[in-house]
Amino acid sequence: MGGRAEGGEREVESNYLHQTLLKRSPTLPSNPLAMVGAKVTHMESLDYEINENDLFKHDWRSRSRIQVLQYIFLKWTLAFLVGLLTGIVATFINLAVENISGFKILAVTDLVTKRRYVLGFLYFTGANLALTMVAAILCVCFAPTAAGPGIPEIKAYLNGVNTPNMFGASTLIVKIVGSIGAVSAGLDLGKEGPLVHIGSCIASLVGQGGPDNYRLKWRWLRYFNNDRDRRDLITCGAASGVCAAFRAPLGGVLFALEEIATWWRSVLLWRTFFSTAVVVVVLRGFMEYCRSGNCGLFGEGGLIMFDVSSVSVSYHAMDLISVTVIGVIGGVLGSIYNYLLHKVLRLYSLVNEKGRLHKLLLSIMVSLFTSACLYFLPFLAGCSRCDPSLPDTECPTNSRSGNFRQFNCPPGYYNDLATLLHTSNDNAVRNIFSTSTQKELHPLSLIIFFALYCILGLFTFGIAVPSGLFLPIILMGSGYGRLLGLFMGSYTSIDQGLYAVLGAASLMAGSMRMTVSLCVIFLELTNNLLLLPITMIVLLIAKTVGDYFNPSIYEIMLNMKGLPFLEAHPEPWMRNLTVGELADSKPAVVTLHGVEKVSRIVEVLRNTKHNGFPVVDQEAIYPFDPVGLRLPAASAGPGTTELHGLILRAHLLAALNEKWFLSEPRRTEEWKVREKFTSAVLAERGRKIEEVAITEDEMEMYVDLHPLTNTTPYTVVESMSVAKAIVLFRQVGLRQMLIIPKYRAAGISPVVGILTRQDLRASNILSAFSHLAKSKGLERK
Amino acid sequence: MGGRAEGGEREVESNYLHQTLLKRSPTLPSNPLAMVGAKVTHMESLDYEINENDLFKHDWRSRSRIQVLQYIFLKWTLAFLVGLLTGIVATFINLAVENISGFKILAVTDLVTKRRYVLGFLYFTGANLALTMVAAILCVCFAPTAAGPGIPEIKAYLNGVNTPNMFGASTLIVKIVGSIGAVSAGLDLGKEGPLVHIGSCIASLVGQGGPDNYRLKWRWLRYFNNDRDRRDLITCGAASGVCAAFRAPLGGVLFALEEIATWWRSVLLWRTFFSTAVVVVVLRGFMEYCRSGNCGLFGEGGLIMFDVSSVSVSYHAMDLISVTVIGVIGGVLGSIYNYLLHKVLRLYSLVNEKGRLHKLLLSIMVSLFTSACLYFLPFLAGCSRCDPSLPDTECPTNSRSGNFRQFNCPPGYYNDLATLLHTSNDNAVRNIFSTSTQKELHPLSLIIFFALYCILGLFTFGIAVPSGLFLPIILMGSGYGRLLGLFMGSYTSIDQGLYAVLGAASLMAGSMRMTVSLCVIFLELTNNLLLLPITMIVLLIAKTVGDYFNPSIYEIMLNMKGLPFLEAHPEPWMRNLTVGELADSKPAVVTLHGVEKVSRIVEVLRNTKHNGFPVVDQEAIYPFDPVGLRLPAASAGPGTTELHGLILRAHLLAALNEKWFLSEPRRTEEWKVREKFTSAVLAERGRKIEEVAITEDEMEMYVDLHPLTNTTPYTVVESMSVAKAIVLFRQVGLRQMLIIPKYRAAGISPVVGILTRQDLRASNILSAFSHLAKSKGLERK
Repeated sequence: MGGRAEGGEREVESNYLHQTLLKRSPTLPSNPLAMVGAKVTHMESLDYEINENDLFKHDWRSRSRIQVLQYIFLKWTLAFLVGLLTGIVATFINLAVENISGFKILAVTDLVTKRRYVLGFLYFTGANLALTMVAAILCVCFAPTAAGPGIPEIKAYLNGVNTPNMFGASTLIVKIVGSIGAVSAGLDLGKEGPLVHIGSCIASLVGQGGPDNYRLKWRWLRYFNNDRDRRDLITCGAASGVCAAFRAPLGGVLFALEEIATWWRSVLLWRTFFSTAVVVVVLRGFMEYCRSGNCGLFGEGGLIMFDVSSVSVSYHAMDLISVTVIGVIGGVLGSIYNYLLHKVLRLYSLVNEKGRLHKLLLSIMVSLFTSACLYFLPFLAGCSRCDPSLPDTECPTNSRSGNFRQFNCPPGYYNDLATLLHTSNDNAVRNIFSTSTQKELHPLSLIIFFALYCILGLFTFGIAVPSGLFLPIILMGSGYGRLLGLFMGSYTSIDQGLYAVLGAASLMAGSMRMTVSLCVIFLELTNNLLLLPITMIVLLIAKTVGDYFNPSIYEIMLNMKGLPFLEAHPEPWMRNLTVGELADSKPAVVTLHGVEKVSRIVEVLRNTKHNGFPVVDQEAIYPFDPVGLRLPAASAGPGTTELHGLILRAHLLAALNEKWFLSEPRRTEEWKVREKFTSAVLAERGRKIEEVAITEDEMEMYVDLHPLTNTTPYTVVESMSVAKAIVLFRQVGLRQMLIIPKYRAAGISPVVGILTRQDLRASNILSAFSHLAKSKGLERK
Repeated sequence: MGGRAEGGEREVESNYLHQTLLKRSPTLPSNPLAMVGAKVTHMESLDYEINENDLFKHDWRSRSRIQVLQYIFLKWTLAFLVGLLTGIVATFINLAVENISGFKILAVTDLVTKRRYVLGFLYFTGANLALTMVAAILCVCFAPTAAGPGIPEIKAYLNGVNTPNMFGASTLIVKIVGSIGAVSAGLDLGKEGPLVHIGSCIASLVGQGGPDNYRLKWRWLRYFNNDRDRRDLITCGAASGVCAAFRAPLGGVLFALEEIATWWRSVLLWRTFFSTAVVVVVLRGFMEYCRSGNCGLFGEGGLIMFDVSSVSVSYHAMDLISVTVIGVIGGVLGSIYNYLLHKVLRLYSLVNEKGRLHKLLLSIMVSLFTSACLYFLPFLAGCSRCDPSLPDTECPTNSRSGNFRQFNCPPGYYNDLATLLHTSNDNAVRNIFSTSTQKELHPLSLIIFFALYCILGLFTFGIAVPSGLFLPIILMGSGYGRLLGLFMGSYTSIDQGLYAVLGAASLMAGSMRMTVSLCVIFLELTNNLLLLPITMIVLLIAKTVGDYFNPSIYEIMLNMKGLPFLEAHPEPWMRNLTVGELADSKPAVVTLHGVEKVSRIVEVLRNTKHNGFPVVDQEAIYPFDPVGLRLPAASAGPGTTELHGLILRAHLLAALNEKWFLSEPRRTEEWKVREKFTSAVLAERGRKIEEVAITEDEMEMYVDLHPLTNTTPYTVVESMSVAKAIVLFRQVGLRQMLIIPKYRAAGISPVVGILTRQDLRASNILSAFSHLAKSKGLERK
């Protein structure tokens, strides 16, 4: 917890340098800036709440049964399309990676066998460098948001924070091509994280009917022109991405549920499940097709990547000890990795800030270092004699895959380190997971392997290429797991390959802190249900140990990037602060009148960046109470004000843009409004006040805001504690929450303040109320 | 949807007869009565929200780090204990059932082989009847709530509805013994549902430190004396129960997530997962022990019940058609089953209302009918010659299990229907799931089997014994699945056994409407990951088709029992109604003053059944605003009232019980309150006003309610739509929600009304606002 808060505060400070967009209140920092692709950008929150204004209500009332069916049909069609396209793209990436890296490795192996070592090195390094450059240049020049895994940004999006340029067409293309380049280049990174991002991009593009400039103008798609439905689609996309990465449909759904999504409904469980089912069918279809040799070097392996189902697992009470040890080590190593990676990423962000050239140089250096290590380290390992019981085709081998690589050894011998290093990352994992090969790998080779991937895992992740964290962690973890299995020797009845699997699982749990979804992913990867109980124990222990030291790697990255993520639980000290006190520390709230002058609206929009404004009626001209039971309008007196509701910036801009002006201050008829504003006009986002031209005369006119106002915003009384307000804010998925006064009388504004996501973030509150920080150390409930 | 609303309304009407506990408002029916174990009982809602009064705040502030650690330690210890005990109880039940039914079947088989058919029948029927009677008498006389599966009540509990006597020690014991009796009696019901209930009972008992009368007085347990933590524990218990039933740890977690729980947090995911991991370890340990023959007839079978992992699944695009057909039929059959079961249960409830004897007679009739069918139907089937390639020990067999039973056939022949009927239910499933036995079962035998279990499945479930729905549905579904596989013949490459599995899955999805959890349960049951994609498709289709016709079986049962379950989504027409209108249709809200006379409190408590009362301060004596920025107390005027908060009935009773009276109306010092009321006193529930004795003199005294009042209740403004209010109510897990007025002035009460679970139920609102019903037919969003 200390680490988390620290990261958050640091980011707030470092952002001061780039602060040009917004004036800050001196008391409560509301800082909607975040680092996206090494650039600091203005963040937008999303509108998940249904904006119940008159127009929406009428639109909803007039929605026919046919339209409801259209909506349902479209919802499922889009989920299907997301699955289908993600499956196809994932197959394409697999195909490209397997072929490119396959041919590269075959050529190098050929040179090594001919003992032309220097030429082999040059070829190997050159090819890797070229591939890295393709990925890096694309990322740096065309889509900086495509660098990294993208998972933190998706997590933030589903929490209600819109990161600009995250889900565009250019990001998608750069991510696909860059991912192919980076993975084929033999860098220590995976295509898993990027696939999650790719799935989400596809979902976003499909939902809006294509790239920004070439959108499909299909009328049905208007139903999806809201943040709520887009959020659901992107959840499906993320789940499909995980599913495509690990060929784990259930794992994908659970990953989305456990790690990515903030709000979850059982309806969504079902739809996500449908998407991943489609992905699996697509993947299976392609594999069936490729098995017959139609896809070049691709086509080996079934639906399950690291199949250890052939091993009959039998373990006894004694093995619980070694399982515990794996878990504890995994937790400790995972948290150390998180800590170090955080430091490295901060270092890298300093380098990255210096410009594009520096980013490219960093990538080049990492690529050269990786190539050199992968090429030369196997020479350190000795040659081992092949087991005579194995056929000649299996040991030694010079083909692309295979468990016993000849490399520089004489015939009949194999180089065990080359088996692990001189192959694609996927094959390396498969080799180190391989079972019933007790004596294949030497302890020294495993130590070198583990040490190398520890170093690479720390220094590769931050470079400007699409990169996933799963594979580096699996490689590291499997290394120490297998090493442990080797040391246990005859004390254990569990196969060394399974130790490697458990090691990988423990390190993932220790770093990423997931349990159920990891368990299912590993289950689907290894296809061995009997491993389940010990995997569960390992994961639980590793997560518990890791949580003791620092937060998960995704949380660290969210904080580093400054994404205003809203945590699930309020901090305990928030019970001692009321929302009223919080509102007092902010500048006074900007309110509009129900019938407002155009000049005032323009002024407000120009001078603030707020996205919602309370609408206050000066006099209760149109009393709410239809029966007149409680309060006759007269008794309210002339000074009485009334909170009519909340109006969104976008709707104010729409009103100005459509020039919906009145020459005198009065209320308008409902049908006129409906004629003027279709739901499409209101759903439009991204308009700017600077783009709206208003004449001098128009400035003196009036706008009736009533029909555009959301008359039922969620409100809290000022005496509510911040802890409870946060629960409401997050559970209901709000963007703005109005604070109403406890007492009300003539002359008192009916709204005390307005709270947004930034106001409710722990680090922001603490910097304004520093006396609360003393109780911060207390454990959360 | 029609079915659901109809069921709800019906129940409201039928309850009028039993309505003695409460006076009803003529406009809005607030009916907290439900049918529990065929008896109508008063229901209580649960307090999930944290009651933030002064005492709680002080208690929380003074909580030391040690206490927080104690709490965390205890949380995990309890989760461990729940898993451990559930595992042990489940093993005990398995052991007992296998042995009792095993010896019974062996004896009958012996008699049949000796052609003493009548004696065999008498023995079989007599044994079954005796076992049924044990279960039925226990249920009828000692714990009526132990009848049935218990899952709807658990689902309602986790939604916030407390069904009395659901989780007591007597219920637990009756459930265990009754379950053993009912399952061994060969009735068409399973131990799966009861195990979920058993797990929840264990969780509840463990959490409160033992049975009601013999509670452990451990100080640490006070942390768990609240509805919130008990809810979490019971979720763990339910997941453990599913895990123990199917030996499916992940399935258990997901079942709890998808079907049972209303609120879910990722912390809970992790803790439930821990509990189920413990269950699996316990089960595995016992099986290891029993495998060596220490447990009588028990001990066969590994961790997975219906292992079909040996089958290599290969399927092609063409098989998608048959898979679709299975799904569609499963969906249709499932919804027909739901419909008919609903009718049968209503019929049975009429019988059950007539008294205990009628309940017992019903059980006896069902037992006799079942025994007769199971015994005589196999005689209809002809004898088949054993495959000569099979060894003599395998075909025919007279032992307890085995795939080819000799029954009444000559040596070398077997009776295929006896294989399915003349065995325990678990073995029947295993036999019908058996793979690579294409010609074992004849179409006619399968048709008889399917028809028999359709009838039994409808008429067995409602009798007064602990009964689960899973197994009957699996038996039915596997019957039609295998039949379909048989008809497909050479057109399909999928094994007949897998057809049976898919059939069972489809019918479960068609009736229970779960997807992800069922998928995982089937995955863990069958241990064949390659089945996953087609299972997913079957489940999705069956659920979609079923949802078109009627709600899931659990929803039907919830409605039948009249449990006030709060749905996840508001109905669309709720947008057209404000909470203010809803409050107007109710009697005026009963408020208390901050310093209130004892006689008034007693009067209010005697004449109402409400569980929370708004506390209103007549004059703003102690103005809230500490800085005095907005409203000096004076300006509020003498008539101004202020909403201080909400006080719970239990806390009012505590104040009366502790005789915390003042001779004059004034505020008290905080430390005095703290001395008087410990958190244990406040946490006590179930006190009654009739039990509190108050003298005449005391009646004239005063109570200062301020320190006991929750000062930050969640509130909504009266203009809020009901749809939005429901979202808030359910998302935050409220029991009461205060409605505050939109306008406020002198003489106006600061609280317009109070909404509870009953007020927000669709059927209750519709009966008061019948004009809204016209738009009811619209599909939900």
